[in-house]
Amino acid sequence: MTTETPSTTRPGGRSARVRAAVHRAVVDLLTEQPADGLTIPAVAQRAGVHPTTVYRRWGSIAELIAAVASSRFTGDLVVPDTGSLRSDLQQWAAEVATDLNDPDSLAILRAGVGSGPPGTSHNCVADREAQIAAMIERERARGHATPDATATTERLLGPIYYRALFQGGVDPAWAQRLVTELD
Amino acid sequence: MTTETPSTTRPGGRSARVRAAVHRAVVDLLTEQPADGLTIPAVAQRAGVHPTTVYRRWGSIAELIAAVASSRFTGDLVVPDTGSLRSDLQQWAAEVATDLNDPDSLAILRAGVGSGPPGTSHNCVADREAQIAAMIERERARGHATPDATATTERLLGPIYYRALFQGGVDPAWAQRLVTELD
Repeated sequence: MTTETPSTTRPGGRSARVRAAVHRAVVDLLTEQPADGLTIPAVAQRAGVHPTTVYRRWGSIAELIAAVASSRFTGDLVVPDTGSLRSDLQQWAAEVATDLNDPDSLAILRAGVGSGPPGTSHNCVADREAQIAAMIERERARGHATPDATATTERLLGPIYYRALFQGGVDPAWAQRLVTELD
Repeated sequence: MTTETPSTTRPGGRSARVRAAVHRAVVDLLTEQPADGLTIPAVAQRAGVHPTTVYRRWGSIAELIAAVASSRFTGDLVVPDTGSLRSDLQQWAAEVATDLNDPDSLAILRAGVGSGPPGTSHNCVADREAQIAAMIERERARGHATPDATATTERLLGPIYYRALFQGGVDPAWAQRLVTELD
């Protein structure tokens, strides 16, 4: 979904610094003036880079937002390993909820949902879905019966994201209780 | 959330025609070039009205999108009255799913989530939540035990909107099956 080309990127080099500055500018602008008015020239100005640099690397504001969302919501949560699926999911659900209460996270999520063609928003939740599958797989490897990953995703992440996107604010203790209702 | 002033509006008058043209222009532009680039001048041009008219009446693109979403997702579905809560909810869930498969509806929903300050997106689902409460209230009036409206909303609309927003496409038969899992 992104046009970033890591082949020409050295960690810590100019390319990485531009990327960090541009991603930071997107998040800052989103929290200051949600979606409305977010343009590549505005992002470039805030990041202190030339607009052409941003156009060349990301192509469009939708692709840039998708890249920021992918980056933000991938690898940011550690999958718990408590010894049981239920307590793994409880701990993890509380962390997902806590993250969505962060204004930066919510702003990026809302922008990721609102921009680009249908389908690009999946990068906001792809890592969350993979983590549910990983927790279930670990339970299976312990020799226990396991629930369906798709059903678990819908019944756990469905209510959590519904609250975050439409009602504002996700209580971590409530998110944990959703896990006990899965059985 | 909207600055529309119905006090000066006559049905079928110029004000109503402008409103209809502007709302239509927003939907057309959203389905053609999602979110990215939606501006009041572009909407005004498509609607054939002066940008000042749009600024004066709606204030900002975020408020205009909120007004379009409110209008679109309010009063569009009829609450079924089949004689039992379960079959009411099943029929209604299938209709919600079918509506979200309409590209116009999905584009408006995504734009409603992506624009404006946190909280404005609730107008996309306020009528849906009121309808669930109404179906439960009717079951209560029949003298039957009733589930909690908030829990029913989260367990039914949570998975449906998660699929619509992040996975694209909501199977109406699957949405109906969610109702049988509520018990």
